[in-house]
Amino acid sequence: MSQAPLYALVMAGGSGTRFWPASREARPKQYLPISGGKPMLTETVERLEGLVQKEHVLIVTAKSQLDEVRRCLPDVPEENLIAEPEARNTAPCVALGALEVLRRDPNAVQVVLPADHVIEPRSAFAASVGAAAEEARASGALVTLGIRPDHPATGYGYIEAAERVARRPGGDVHRVARFVEKPDAARAEAFLKQGGFYWNAGIFVWSGAAIRAALEAFLPDVVTGLERAFAGGSLATEYARFASQPIDVAVLEKAHNVRVVPVDYSWSDVGSWAALAELAPLAEGSNRAALSSGAQLLAEDSTNCLAYAEGDQLIALLGVHDLVVVRAGNATLVCPRDRAQDVKRLVDRLRKAGDSRFL
Amino acid sequence: MSQAPLYALVMAGGSGTRFWPASREARPKQYLPISGGKPMLTETVERLEGLVQKEHVLIVTAKSQLDEVRRCLPDVPEENLIAEPEARNTAPCVALGALEVLRRDPNAVQVVLPADHVIEPRSAFAASVGAAAEEARASGALVTLGIRPDHPATGYGYIEAAERVARRPGGDVHRVARFVEKPDAARAEAFLKQGGFYWNAGIFVWSGAAIRAALEAFLPDVVTGLERAFAGGSLATEYARFASQPIDVAVLEKAHNVRVVPVDYSWSDVGSWAALAELAPLAEGSNRAALSSGAQLLAEDSTNCLAYAEGDQLIALLGVHDLVVVRAGNATLVCPRDRAQDVKRLVDRLRKAGDSRFL
Repeated sequence: MSQAPLYALVMAGGSGTRFWPASREARPKQYLPISGGKPMLTETVERLEGLVQKEHVLIVTAKSQLDEVRRCLPDVPEENLIAEPEARNTAPCVALGALEVLRRDPNAVQVVLPADHVIEPRSAFAASVGAAAEEARASGALVTLGIRPDHPATGYGYIEAAERVARRPGGDVHRVARFVEKPDAARAEAFLKQGGFYWNAGIFVWSGAAIRAALEAFLPDVVTGLERAFAGGSLATEYARFASQPIDVAVLEKAHNVRVVPVDYSWSDVGSWAALAELAPLAEGSNRAALSSGAQLLAEDSTNCLAYAEGDQLIALLGVHDLVVVRAGNATLVCPRDRAQDVKRLVDRLRKAGDSRFL
Repeated sequence: MSQAPLYALVMAGGSGTRFWPASREARPKQYLPISGGKPMLTETVERLEGLVQKEHVLIVTAKSQLDEVRRCLPDVPEENLIAEPEARNTAPCVALGALEVLRRDPNAVQVVLPADHVIEPRSAFAASVGAAAEEARASGALVTLGIRPDHPATGYGYIEAAERVARRPGGDVHRVARFVEKPDAARAEAFLKQGGFYWNAGIFVWSGAAIRAALEAFLPDVVTGLERAFAGGSLATEYARFASQPIDVAVLEKAHNVRVVPVDYSWSDVGSWAALAELAPLAEGSNRAALSSGAQLLAEDSTNCLAYAEGDQLIALLGVHDLVVVRAGNATLVCPRDRAQDVKRLVDRLRKAGDSRFL
């Protein structure tokens, strides 16, 4: 296989309430400076620098989020923004993006990645993608990255690695024995004890030919529908027919040519304020702060809190502990770290009240 | 004595840090909607409606606060705004205002009151001021209002009432036995047990002649200085010579013609966020909220918190208790109610850091 260019397919169409009030209906998590600094989507694309040329970065997103994408990525060419007519989980989204890249360059290797993960350091990430891309080129496999777990997380799916099939400069490559859905605590503990289990980061590397073959095998209706749309049909009509399912379940768990590159770097899908409270930068003692654009934290006699603020804002904490304090737009949230998962209850109340100012 | 008009002298020049971040150097507490709704100064003047004609309301304030006064009281005539060149506690402030009213109307009775108290209900307040004004007219006494204590507060000065000297429609009038500075807890308990002790609310009613005589007796230099200024001299030069002292200590504690009208209504000088947490309106269960101009509180599993917000803002509390949460301008404060007195430590740190954005 030739040294074809690497394309990136960034999946940015998600929505959710777990980062309310920072995330809103019109501005989900990937457009926010969740880890401080730049929006997650911007950081995701910057993480690809040196690995993927700018004109080879495609963003798949919701129609309603196109302006947010343009705001975060002013340099990405307009024709690289792909809008889904509606959200159908990741399988149709990945298929749409993958077949579009295939149309543009049949020889390209594709790296598919979510727009809202925190990954450090960038160099290790680049090396692992490089190894996965080499494997994808060389073997035609569907390659995933597997994050070596540092704790028995119950919030992630796991990949069990089988025997090693290759050693590449950026990492080893293993055959995948199986994908495991989010386990309970006991099973997660057992995975860690046994070893060879990795978190499924939802990052995939494959050639256009390989993913097309897999889609034809496991999602033939999606392939047919997308081709009708490419030929001038209505993408919205096709999408309305697609089942809503994740690409992992719909394709990767069924395919036999799946490989995993185990990696050691720091990775998180930052699924909640509580998760951010583990990984935001330390500030003012044991507190952590995700602050952007001149925002500031001032803490007195306060420990283990997370402060999130955007813009020229101050969060002042006095004598408080283990709290999440978020000041975002016109809303402020205060809750204990261990109650952060219930933020959706606040959002539900606002929805019931029909109070769109804060949604 | 003729039924001379009632003038009001509102003392609005104070400054402080106890309501930071709502109060800032350029906008102290009296210009804030501390109890929700309107700024305290506006509410103070509205409380005088029907009692004092608008053109008889004078505001004594700091030069730097004149614009805030105008914002809060667009209807008060410009010539009724009296600017002190510098802050010298209440004695020079009251003397300046009282002698100015005397110049305008030698027969007026004056009610002197701070701009930053919460008093409910308005009708009872009006009745008590009416009684005090009648007493001031009839006897030429210096009349104070004494708030019947409902708990052994250590943060207020007390007035011990002696025998009753008059019964008036709006309240009884007693001779004052003595003024007592803020007591410790044991003494405050004893005052309540003994009875006849009232909180000194810093609200005074007197005739121009009576206060002039008292000022001449106890603050002759201030009277002389102010008259030089009225005659064309520099008020700033005179002020620089005045001792900084409260009117209670400088004059009322020494005068022999002091009376008190004991009153039963709800009164607070709202000295801190903790005090506001006792008297702001209940909202969302046991929480209290001081919200103005469309601000909103949303509380889930949260009790005994105080939320303060201005403007079209939401404060959302989830699973928290006994907290003060303030969102004001570009700053947000979170602290337990029983730590509110330490807010000045945050302000001190900002001052040391020279960060004027948040001061």
